[in-house]
Amino acid sequence: VQIRILGAAAGGAFPQWNCSCANCARLRQGRFSGQARSQTQLAVSADARDWFLFNASPDLRYQLEAFPPLHPQATRHTPIAGIVLTCAEVDAALGLLLLREFQPITVYCTESVRRVLVEDNTLFQVLYRQPGQVTFINIVPGAAFDLGTSGLRVTSVSTAGGHPGFVPKARADHLSPDEAVLGFVLEHRDHRAAFFPNLSRVQPDWLALFQTCDVVLVDGTFWSDDELIRTHNTAKKAREMGHLPVEESIASLTDLRGRKIFIHINNTNPILDEDSPEHAKLRNAGWEVAYDGMKIIL
Amino acid sequence: VQIRILGAAAGGAFPQWNCSCANCARLRQGRFSGQARSQTQLAVSADARDWFLFNASPDLRYQLEAFPPLHPQATRHTPIAGIVLTCAEVDAALGLLLLREFQPITVYCTESVRRVLVEDNTLFQVLYRQPGQVTFINIVPGAAFDLGTSGLRVTSVSTAGGHPGFVPKARADHLSPDEAVLGFVLEHRDHRAAFFPNLSRVQPDWLALFQTCDVVLVDGTFWSDDELIRTHNTAKKAREMGHLPVEESIASLTDLRGRKIFIHINNTNPILDEDSPEHAKLRNAGWEVAYDGMKIIL
Repeated sequence: VQIRILGAAAGGAFPQWNCSCANCARLRQGRFSGQARSQTQLAVSADARDWFLFNASPDLRYQLEAFPPLHPQATRHTPIAGIVLTCAEVDAALGLLLLREFQPITVYCTESVRRVLVEDNTLFQVLYRQPGQVTFINIVPGAAFDLGTSGLRVTSVSTAGGHPGFVPKARADHLSPDEAVLGFVLEHRDHRAAFFPNLSRVQPDWLALFQTCDVVLVDGTFWSDDELIRTHNTAKKAREMGHLPVEESIASLTDLRGRKIFIHINNTNPILDEDSPEHAKLRNAGWEVAYDGMKIIL
Repeated sequence: VQIRILGAAAGGAFPQWNCSCANCARLRQGRFSGQARSQTQLAVSADARDWFLFNASPDLRYQLEAFPPLHPQATRHTPIAGIVLTCAEVDAALGLLLLREFQPITVYCTESVRRVLVEDNTLFQVLYRQPGQVTFINIVPGAAFDLGTSGLRVTSVSTAGGHPGFVPKARADHLSPDEAVLGFVLEHRDHRAAFFPNLSRVQPDWLALFQTCDVVLVDGTFWSDDELIRTHNTAKKAREMGHLPVEESIASLTDLRGRKIFIHINNTNPILDEDSPEHAKLRNAGWEVAYDGMKIIL
């Protein structure tokens, strides 16, 4: 199984269009020890022919173009066999609208995610321009499902995050909270990978699950709980936004036997700077920081 | 006045993710005489400090990053003073959702365009996360308006295009057809530029208007009326999709005194290939083909 990280940043990417924090400013000035990153996006394949996307990021057009195995092989064609959504947030789902050119696509997501995207946004009608253009396959949180006939099997875990802020409260009140944000464990024969880009806490059973994996890709949005308060004078703590701070994950996620990688990294996070003490600290704890183009073979 | 072309392609850009036509295939193989292009996007400034965007393309994040005058000058800041929309199509408007990071923005569009985007799509609530985040300024087709205090004045022209395909018919039936697709004439002191990326025909009064301009940027989507029928076996002609073919524009748009530039160019259009007879033909007729990074000074 090949997992290709097409994007490793949180919403807004790195650098962010309206941000000139220490990270963004130095990156633009060419004096930053680290690289730019697009919004979190994975591509996974068991046979290097059919690929499954995890997330559909707003940067998807550039991400597909940057990875030749995802280029079309005929006049109208795509090697993308399916798209699996963790949630309905703009940074995880907007890319569906970029896949609008009369191409049949299959999307795996919860019923709530499908409803807040497709039922509440006429824009998604671009995926219904011809019969059979889009097929939604329902993910039941906690249940396992196969990705077509690829041999890849996915188990979903509800991480008890909230529905996106753009969802009107009256609408959100009638949606299952379990269906808002998912993490996934991907399995192929005896290989297992975890993908939890949005994680506000670690339940004991999730930790047990991570301990069975060859690689875990987990929420690396913020280093500390008050990161945005310090950099941008905003009032929200990382945990209130659904993100367990990296410094706490390092302490909580122990006894993992596989590779440990932070993904979904916000532009303000000091771990992006490879010369920072925070970067050194996570490396010393055996962790890695995902980057665009990173290749994981299981 | 500086006009910077940040993107010159039609919807889907060039190359297009699921297309392997002669243009897209050769570009990816590195044997194409011409360059990649992102979706149509202009930035305009009269003082090289405050910039106005025309369109908000899905490629906007990359387009802003590629043009340093649009980078933030403070921790949270943008030199973008306003965004002017020609229509509500995905390729012209989706970029608004990329400008969601708590940054105040001003959007100029018709009432119909605002309604089919904001009222019919909860995703746009990301622009209402804090008071005063987004301000819509209504464009009345045919009327002129100032872009803030920049000294730039814009006259809008309804090009009688249709509302986007994603708008439900029952909704479209209650919207003014004049408010669906606009062209603009931009004026600053005695300089004038026309931007008509969607044009299905040329009315005599539009031609008269173009004849007063120092530069015209007009619809270059397709070379011929049956281009998509030949390349993709789809049933639609260029004109049915709201685009006057380039070969007919060359014949119709005569006696222009300024620069004549085609923009909004589809990936299938032979004019992208600088070695093609079609490219030679338009050059011989005094026309240019817009490209990402093209700079126009008035």
